[in-house]
Amino acid sequence: MRLATLRDGTPDGALVVVADDGRRCLHAGTSLIAAMADWSAVAPRLHALAQRLAGGEGDAFDPALLAAPMPRSWQWLDGSAFNQHGALMQVAFNQPPIATDRPLMYQGLSDRFYGPADPVPFADPADGIDFEGEFGVIVDAVPMGTTAAAAAAHIRLIVQINDWSLRTLAPVEMKTGFGWIQAKPPCSMAPFAVTPDELGDDWRDGRVAADLLVEWNGARFGLVRGDEMAFSFAELVAHAARTRDLVAGTIIGSGTVSNSAYATRGSACISERRAIEIIAAGKPETPFMALGDRVRMQAITSDGRTPFGAIDQQVVAAG
Amino acid sequence: MRLATLRDGTPDGALVVVADDGRRCLHAGTSLIAAMADWSAVAPRLHALAQRLAGGEGDAFDPALLAAPMPRSWQWLDGSAFNQHGALMQVAFNQPPIATDRPLMYQGLSDRFYGPADPVPFADPADGIDFEGEFGVIVDAVPMGTTAAAAAAHIRLIVQINDWSLRTLAPVEMKTGFGWIQAKPPCSMAPFAVTPDELGDDWRDGRVAADLLVEWNGARFGLVRGDEMAFSFAELVAHAARTRDLVAGTIIGSGTVSNSAYATRGSACISERRAIEIIAAGKPETPFMALGDRVRMQAITSDGRTPFGAIDQQVVAAG
Repeated sequence: MRLATLRDGTPDGALVVVADDGRRCLHAGTSLIAAMADWSAVAPRLHALAQRLAGGEGDAFDPALLAAPMPRSWQWLDGSAFNQHGALMQVAFNQPPIATDRPLMYQGLSDRFYGPADPVPFADPADGIDFEGEFGVIVDAVPMGTTAAAAAAHIRLIVQINDWSLRTLAPVEMKTGFGWIQAKPPCSMAPFAVTPDELGDDWRDGRVAADLLVEWNGARFGLVRGDEMAFSFAELVAHAARTRDLVAGTIIGSGTVSNSAYATRGSACISERRAIEIIAAGKPETPFMALGDRVRMQAITSDGRTPFGAIDQQVVAAG
Repeated sequence: MRLATLRDGTPDGALVVVADDGRRCLHAGTSLIAAMADWSAVAPRLHALAQRLAGGEGDAFDPALLAAPMPRSWQWLDGSAFNQHGALMQVAFNQPPIATDRPLMYQGLSDRFYGPADPVPFADPADGIDFEGEFGVIVDAVPMGTTAAAAAAHIRLIVQINDWSLRTLAPVEMKTGFGWIQAKPPCSMAPFAVTPDELGDDWRDGRVAADLLVEWNGARFGLVRGDEMAFSFAELVAHAARTRDLVAGTIIGSGTVSNSAYATRGSACISERRAIEIIAAGKPETPFMALGDRVRMQAITSDGRTPFGAIDQQVVAAG
């Protein structure tokens, strides 16, 4: 089942169930954040709408006009579960490796997520505008102390995210130990939030074993795979719930998708490519994004489907 | 003007305006988070209710039954603006000083704030349960790029907060550079959110120049002053808004109140006292909180008023 959110003038928007063709929908009469708070009761109604869509019903809609499937959430916790990304970022930031065997995670801005085709405003291109292609999960209410084994059942939806990042600010904030505020403006989401079954065999071991195609200004930048996470999403959820109840609708991110075979697969963020250039040639060559640039991100399953739809956005000047 | 939130079965509760006696209120017909989103329109109505309360109207209520004035927010950004606190915490965490001339700030859990008398559940006392007494401000919508001078006008309310912290987890997370997840469970708030004028001359230079009395199990632990912030609240707001619009209802914290005269004033968290013991005697003497312990925090203005009311809570076992 695939879900999306139509803009309706309210902050949370109108939840719709989307047909397999990605062009028809039926209204659920609620918002996704409200649905997550009562998922066991709401999900059967959503599945009933999906069956009607399969029978040919539904209203046409334009995916480019969609909001993020969850336009705002009470909590966004982003992991960094791809070890290859971490290793390259420490090169990019000129910092020593992070010595930990625990999941890395920060709490990010969650009061707004950009829709898949929204222009993305930045105050200053000198901040080092970068994208980060990743996957995330949306959970229902998770009690404090939930184990990873029990956390798996709380993963109700999977989403695809661009975690916009400002690279000249990031290492300055990271060195304080406090995490990122200025370096992490709002994220973007691909059009469709999907139930795990929608990924078929590509949802396995609590990971998204699909490709993520990243294109910068129309040129392929990376075709990375999501299954190289050092920790599963269930382990990330359990980590987050160690000392807090997770509110329904909490979004947990994988961190930037990254592969050990980066030489052939490329990267899902510019900063990684710059680190690879530093390793190869002693200095970075690739600039960060400029105003007017576009980035497109789309996951492709092993059977060739694109369940999340595409993020396709332009960087613009704020104000 | 003082505001509070009565529990009414909804997550955001019922906003009330509170009389000077702190025992009578009138319903505002909204929630505080909704009021913040439309403050210019709502504030005059609230002031009209305050005038009726001054005339003797109002319903009796029990402050001990109050929710936090804002039971949840889309964003909680906590600074660390007391340099003395930072210096002592690095001793407590056995880490080098943080070399920065910028405000320190992390994004914390904001989907729930405990009410002033709620029991506070913890999974494991071995995590090093500690309190942190501090002040915070609540802003209306702040556009990205707002200067500190312009930010001052967005500070609509001031609150008093206990930022619960788990000290055996904090340095582990801090060393990753990602900030705190497990070390920062939900915070608590004192009963009343107040407009800046309610503090009189004690609101100056964008700081709360009042005392904060902290009592642990009935014994005085600290009587600290809020005006020693290295950055004003307006500067903290501007720092947070450098690369993001701040959603209405964002709460910005001062970090633990701390004074250079800690030898006479004491501290607003246990970890600071332990650092002072390490400096004096080579090792900490004071344990962290145990299940059943209580902590009470109340600000006292220079003219002897207690505008925020008191946080008075007990630590209990989770589950």
